Amino acid sequence: MGHSRFGDRSDVNLSELTFEAVQPSLEESGLTAKEIPYVAVGSMGVWSEEPLPAVVIAEYCGLTGAGLVRCEAACASGSAAAFTAYSAIASGQMESALVVGAEKMRQIDTPTVLEMIGRAGYYLWEFENFGMTFPAYYAVHAVQHMEKYGTTEEDLALVAVKNHRYGAMNPLSHLQHEITVEKVLGSSVIAWPLKLYDCCPITDGAAALVLASEEKVKELGVEAPVWIEAIGYSSDTANLSKRENYVGLEASVRASRMAYKLAGISPKDVDVATVHDCFTIAEIMAYEDLGFCEKGEGARMIREGETEVDGRIPVNIDGGLKAKGHPIGTTGVSMLAELTKQLREEVKPRRRQAPMKNYTALAHNTGGTGHYGYVTILRR
Amino acid sequence: MGHSRFGDRSDVNLSELTFEAVQPSLEESGLTAKEIPYVAVGSMGVWSEEPLPAVVIAEYCGLTGAGLVRCEAACASGSAAAFTAYSAIASGQMESALVVGAEKMRQIDTPTVLEMIGRAGYYLWEFENFGMTFPAYYAVHAVQHMEKYGTTEEDLALVAVKNHRYGAMNPLSHLQHEITVEKVLGSSVIAWPLKLYDCCPITDGAAALVLASEEKVKELGVEAPVWIEAIGYSSDTANLSKRENYVGLEASVRASRMAYKLAGISPKDVDVATVHDCFTIAEIMAYEDLGFCEKGEGARMIREGETEVDGRIPVNIDGGLKAKGHPIGTTGVSMLAELTKQLREEVKPRRRQAPMKNYTALAHNTGGTGHYGYVTILRR
Repeated sequence: MGHSRFGDRSDVNLSELTFEAVQPSLEESGLTAKEIPYVAVGSMGVWSEEPLPAVVIAEYCGLTGAGLVRCEAACASGSAAAFTAYSAIASGQMESALVVGAEKMRQIDTPTVLEMIGRAGYYLWEFENFGMTFPAYYAVHAVQHMEKYGTTEEDLALVAVKNHRYGAMNPLSHLQHEITVEKVLGSSVIAWPLKLYDCCPITDGAAALVLASEEKVKELGVEAPVWIEAIGYSSDTANLSKRENYVGLEASVRASRMAYKLAGISPKDVDVATVHDCFTIAEIMAYEDLGFCEKGEGARMIREGETEVDGRIPVNIDGGLKAKGHPIGTTGVSMLAELTKQLREEVKPRRRQAPMKNYTALAHNTGGTGHYGYVTILRR
Repeated sequence: MGHSRFGDRSDVNLSELTFEAVQPSLEESGLTAKEIPYVAVGSMGVWSEEPLPAVVIAEYCGLTGAGLVRCEAACASGSAAAFTAYSAIASGQMESALVVGAEKMRQIDTPTVLEMIGRAGYYLWEFENFGMTFPAYYAVHAVQHMEKYGTTEEDLALVAVKNHRYGAMNPLSHLQHEITVEKVLGSSVIAWPLKLYDCCPITDGAAALVLASEEKVKELGVEAPVWIEAIGYSSDTANLSKRENYVGLEASVRASRMAYKLAGISPKDVDVATVHDCFTIAEIMAYEDLGFCEKGEGARMIREGETEVDGRIPVNIDGGLKAKGHPIGTTGVSMLAELTKQLREEVKPRRRQAPMKNYTALAHNTGGTGHYGYVTILRR
């Protein structure tokens, strides 16, 4: 795996940023760029002067000649790219493939970023007609969760405080400062009850993974490889008025149940997870949707510290989207890169390393408000 | 398979257009929308108010709940989507999947379309610095081919005349009128030696394919199924100044040799082919790059009628990109849909049906000027 520093990366262009992730991933794998037969790039790309970035990125990283595709599933693009590369290898068509996540979002103005993200939903219906952007979508979820389960603004703030704490320990994180509940509650309201510190930042960043077949892994003599056990996937209506309720994301429920079944595990077997906390309410809903607790119990989990590094099931102890940052197409790849390090027990500082019991990890990556859902289970 | 009418489709929105292809493909397959586990959408999407179209299309077609991805490899996006769906099935993760190509390009002005297509190359270097758009790229190829092999403007025109003749027989084609060599030679110069009638039109259109495993095909009792034998892929530098020459596309050579090897066939076994004739010179280069003739012999093939329906190897007898049209992400899927009908020997009118000897067909789909290359071999 390889992972660039996340943040405002106006110091590099998209290809240079991607190289920071691709080069270490190749070095670690023992493969050269010329040996990689296929590259799947997770990228939304709409903010770049190179909106069709796969060929330009590939060339800069020395991968010219490989088969190329860009995969897009809104904010789940990185997981979709991993699914394509994984499938290509598992089908026996190739022995290895490179998964890249690459996004440079900060070169355009924030309102345009918000509009482009808004187009990841049902643009004509939700955005044009009702003027809804993603903070507003997740505010609808938060309001209903508060109404139905008694979740409070303080509970939401606790998610931000936790993720900033781990983000501050992660040198690759976009936001590296700790915050307090008071600071979250006192920050500007974006879409009530969500305030500035309930929202993930707009981030540039890249991540990369080399995937290989069992035979190739043996041939390369990889020590303690991390395996993709299962990828679950689902989708849901893009027309929010058709959702049955707003207290969870049905695509997350379905994708996770599919992944658990394929991997032959249950939620309690998961040692560490990354979940799609684009807004604080999203992390609380994810606890419930992924079966880490019963529906309505998510707020209790954050209150009782169950998702801290030493809790029952550590979640987003890399800072999450909330503090590490959320370069759209990169996020799914970044999650798998982080979990790979966790499973290898090589995270530094050590106080950010989750204890391993089953050497099993879960990545939950959604696009839109569960318009797209991917859940990937890794095992060492 | 399903295939919308190509052309100016301002009568429908993107989802409605796609439904015209998806619905017949499902009906023919015997599967319902709810039974489809995964949908791969080939789309460039930059011209639509829904630039992230997979979820909106899927919902309109009743596919909500399926795993979703949009695949983009510039003008080869449709083939990249087919590769993803094929790999997902061949890996044993699912028994069927839907491949969709969907593009609605005519809702924005032509200069913007040309600019967005220009971004499929190396935007910063080629477009910004040298002002090159795709007609100019292919003009470079044409000039060198003419200089090196004596290919003439009349030879290029013959490609347009042939493809318009078949386009006029294809009720789904965008341009349904025949043209003459004189008309091509007398049309406006776009980028010399390419004139208006050497260039494919800007087209709206959709196509869809249901793919399934051998077991599923048996279970569904499909009569005379068409099989994907092999998919070859490659890429090339996006920096045209680094190309060794301009008389062919190296990515086409590599992708086709890979596909031939995987399928265990040689070019002479191909009964019918669709090649990526975005400009007339591209079809002549494709004859050579795919090994249908020696390098430099492409013009002879068109002069001697070898690629007519009754020739040695019929090429683009659906009208090709040149007359059928080229809705970017749809083209690769449209090619496979056309070849499926050819292999089933059900093309109407009958004078557009290629004679079958080996029941083997080839689709050649490139992105950029061979920045991306995919070659798919089908067999019945």
